[in-house]
Amino acid sequence: MALAAGTRVSSRALLRPWALLRGATIRRTEPAAGGGDSARRFGTQRVLVEPDAAAGVAVMKFKNPPVNSLSLELLTEFIISLEKLENDKTFRGVILTSDCPGVFSAGLDLREMCGKNPAHYAEYWKAVQELWLRLYLSNLVLIAAINGACPAGGCLISLTCDYRILADNPKYLMGLNETLLGIVAPFWFKDTLVNTIGHRASEQALQLGLLFLPAEALQVGLVDQVVPEDQVLSTALSVMARWMAIPDHARQLTKNMMRKTTVDRLVKQRDADIQNFVSFISRDSIQKSLQMYLEKLKQKKG
Amino acid sequence: MALAAGTRVSSRALLRPWALLRGATIRRTEPAAGGGDSARRFGTQRVLVEPDAAAGVAVMKFKNPPVNSLSLELLTEFIISLEKLENDKTFRGVILTSDCPGVFSAGLDLREMCGKNPAHYAEYWKAVQELWLRLYLSNLVLIAAINGACPAGGCLISLTCDYRILADNPKYLMGLNETLLGIVAPFWFKDTLVNTIGHRASEQALQLGLLFLPAEALQVGLVDQVVPEDQVLSTALSVMARWMAIPDHARQLTKNMMRKTTVDRLVKQRDADIQNFVSFISRDSIQKSLQMYLEKLKQKKG
Amino acid sequence: MALAAGTRVSSRALLRPWALLRGATIRRTEPAAGGGDSARRFGTQRVLVEPDAAAGVAVMKFKNPPVNSLSLELLTEFIISLEKLENDKTFRGVILTSDCPGVFSAGLDLREMCGKNPAHYAEYWKAVQELWLRLYLSNLVLIAAINGACPAGGCLISLTCDYRILADNPKYLMGLNETLLGIVAPFWFKDTLVNTIGHRASEQALQLGLLFLPAEALQVGLVDQVVPEDQVLSTALSVMARWMAIPDHARQLTKNMMRKTTVDRLVKQRDADIQNFVSFISRDSIQKSLQMYLEKLKQKKG
Repeated sequence: MALAAGTRVSSRALLRPWALLRGATIRRTEPAAGGGDSARRFGTQRVLVEPDAAAGVAVMKFKNPPVNSLSLELLTEFIISLEKLENDKTFRGVILTSDCPGVFSAGLDLREMCGKNPAHYAEYWKAVQELWLRLYLSNLVLIAAINGACPAGGCLISLTCDYRILADNPKYLMGLNETLLGIVAPFWFKDTLVNTIGHRASEQALQLGLLFLPAEALQVGLVDQVVPEDQVLSTALSVMARWMAIPDHARQLTKNMMRKTTVDRLVKQRDADIQNFVSFISRDSIQKSLQMYLEKLKQKKG
Repeated sequence: MALAAGTRVSSRALLRPWALLRGATIRRTEPAAGGGDSARRFGTQRVLVEPDAAAGVAVMKFKNPPVNSLSLELLTEFIISLEKLENDKTFRGVILTSDCPGVFSAGLDLREMCGKNPAHYAEYWKAVQELWLRLYLSNLVLIAAINGACPAGGCLISLTCDYRILADNPKYLMGLNETLLGIVAPFWFKDTLVNTIGHRASEQALQLGLLFLPAEALQVGLVDQVVPEDQVLSTALSVMARWMAIPDHARQLTKNMMRKTTVDRLVKQRDADIQNFVSFISRDSIQKSLQMYLEKLKQKKG
Repeated sequence: MALAAGTRVSSRALLRPWALLRGATIRRTEPAAGGGDSARRFGTQRVLVEPDAAAGVAVMKFKNPPVNSLSLELLTEFIISLEKLENDKTFRGVILTSDCPGVFSAGLDLREMCGKNPAHYAEYWKAVQELWLRLYLSNLVLIAAINGACPAGGCLISLTCDYRILADNPKYLMGLNETLLGIVAPFWFKDTLVNTIGHRASEQALQLGLLFLPAEALQVGLVDQVVPEDQVLSTALSVMARWMAIPDHARQLTKNMMRKTTVDRLVKQRDADIQNFVSFISRDSIQKSLQMYLEKLKQKKG
């Protein structure tokens, strides 16, 4: 018999791994109405983790109001929470989603890049790199349940996942829109995008800083599914079940084989990439333009 | 006049190479009903070759029942038959298809990887590599007429072809489903898939061990055409006519330019790749899992 | 506030850069009917340049009748005109189009490759390389308004642009059809195509020398839009407005990041590539086949 001889003798269901999960459902771990179940939640102040140990799945919710900016604190807590789940054999899959209505994550925090000193910029950029490196080669199955706008760094986070589900809401635009602010996505943002939607679509999206509507995001391959807003999490849980049907070791080696070359490109020049960022962001022209942008945002809020 | 100035003066037919073959039909070389024509067939026990010398095309049929497992014998005979056609100036194109109902090829033969010694595993793997190397850079036009299920190694063979036609039968699933068995597709299987369907689709297909239905295979680009089952071979012959309209030398250099980088990646580390395979397959855990799988298949047959 | 926090507070219009150009229209600089405005045109004999300094855009029209063959003269004038615009801070975008009815450009000029001496072939090939190098990494926004047939070298020119609009006319076939003449597209033609339509589509298109109908060209990603013939230029101007809404510096760095690896591949082996071309084109068999082709074209015209 051959490697996949099963295709002949087994029913088609056998060939569709998710069909193997006979009726398995992954229980959601929302605290009970009475609130007595809160011990089952853990995480940090800005990263809520709702574990379902029985299913081996955790839901990780960003909570850095109002727009889940990737501040140094959020990045640090995110990395710690991820590492914790990665090292806990109980968990095989994590769903990333937002606790802030209307925004998955607005991306990098401009306040970390403006009016600070070079050492701070370097520390901040190292944390951004660290998060990407850990996410993109994570041994966990990562699924993005994108329940809000998803620009720039928010988009990057979702692109590191194994699967992306976007809520069907025309306000939830998604893309690497850095050029709109006069800045440039780093090469590893670009590599992650090219791996997802190909060279030509990336070239155009990155140059124009395109933010895609849900239907467009699906069309170009930025996300794998668009579903009604109230079905984002439940869809993520069903999709997770399919991924959990695959033997971990084989899946992890396969993921590594697909992504390691891309990761190595940053690993080999991590310090140079930090230096690039620090010297770029420290320029007077960039600082001025960021400052003006922040002022404008403050006025709008005021 | 410029290189392609002909586009202006010639009719559109001139620009479509297959239109140049005025009514040319490639005769099939099935032995006549009386059977007296058997001299026109050649090949080996497990690889039937039906040559049409006048057309310059041969149909190569795998015959290793029940499921065309890629045993060491089949691989060896396949390589010999291919080399023979490659060296015979009479032939410019080969159609690969199956003589076993319902299966194109079930892929690598688990019995060659289970309960044998390391020297055998190494010999087997070298033959798998050899086949891929010869197919992927073949000077012949290769067309896969996929008239049955096409998982794992069977899928790989079809991916090395210049064109793939799949019979429209929901039982004929196709894909690199290695992870379903707890094993990992080698990097050159992965490279061949990425060259065909791109990075993102490959990443998902390989991790989930996806087997695609014909319509899905067409959609993702795994095959170029899906046709009714009884038209697979005739379609392959028509498509072959298009490819034969191109001057061989230019076409071969172009194919080499597209694929050489991918081939070189294996050539540079062929021994290391064999060692990897031998040490992976020799693991107790892998041997046990393959043994259990083979037992199960035997029971199903019994 | 985060890098792209604006997604929440701003209207969707803000996220679509072209919406920022409130009613901006780019004036066309056709000479007035009276012809008194001819000072506003510049360029060379074979490359007309119609500048709109106020808009920062120039329309560049190839005029080398009958089919805009890329003769050494046309290449030279094209390079000079491009360099002039590139160095003139007034201009940020250029639209490439044809002044010859029915043909964008028929591609390389066979007469430059036939019956001349090796030094001439080398000079010619160096000019072809030079044009590609300058176009593919141009700091200008380049948009191809493809108003005619677009084979071989004509197709290559359009592929170096940032955006391609093709007139919806079934005579306007487009593709790298070199194999049809028994020659092979150079590796950097191939790289440019792969960057545009991916590996698999390129492999097939290049081997078969496919020339795509407008709808097929759109489908495979060879062009970004197909529009009625009389709207090609106006569409190009509207699209240009979107691209001009992006800060130049960020856009240019992004373009460079996307394309530099591809360009470097030729830069590193430019002389070897010239030698390859000269020795290939000098072969008796190739010279004979080109000569026969040229004869046939002459007879057809006669």
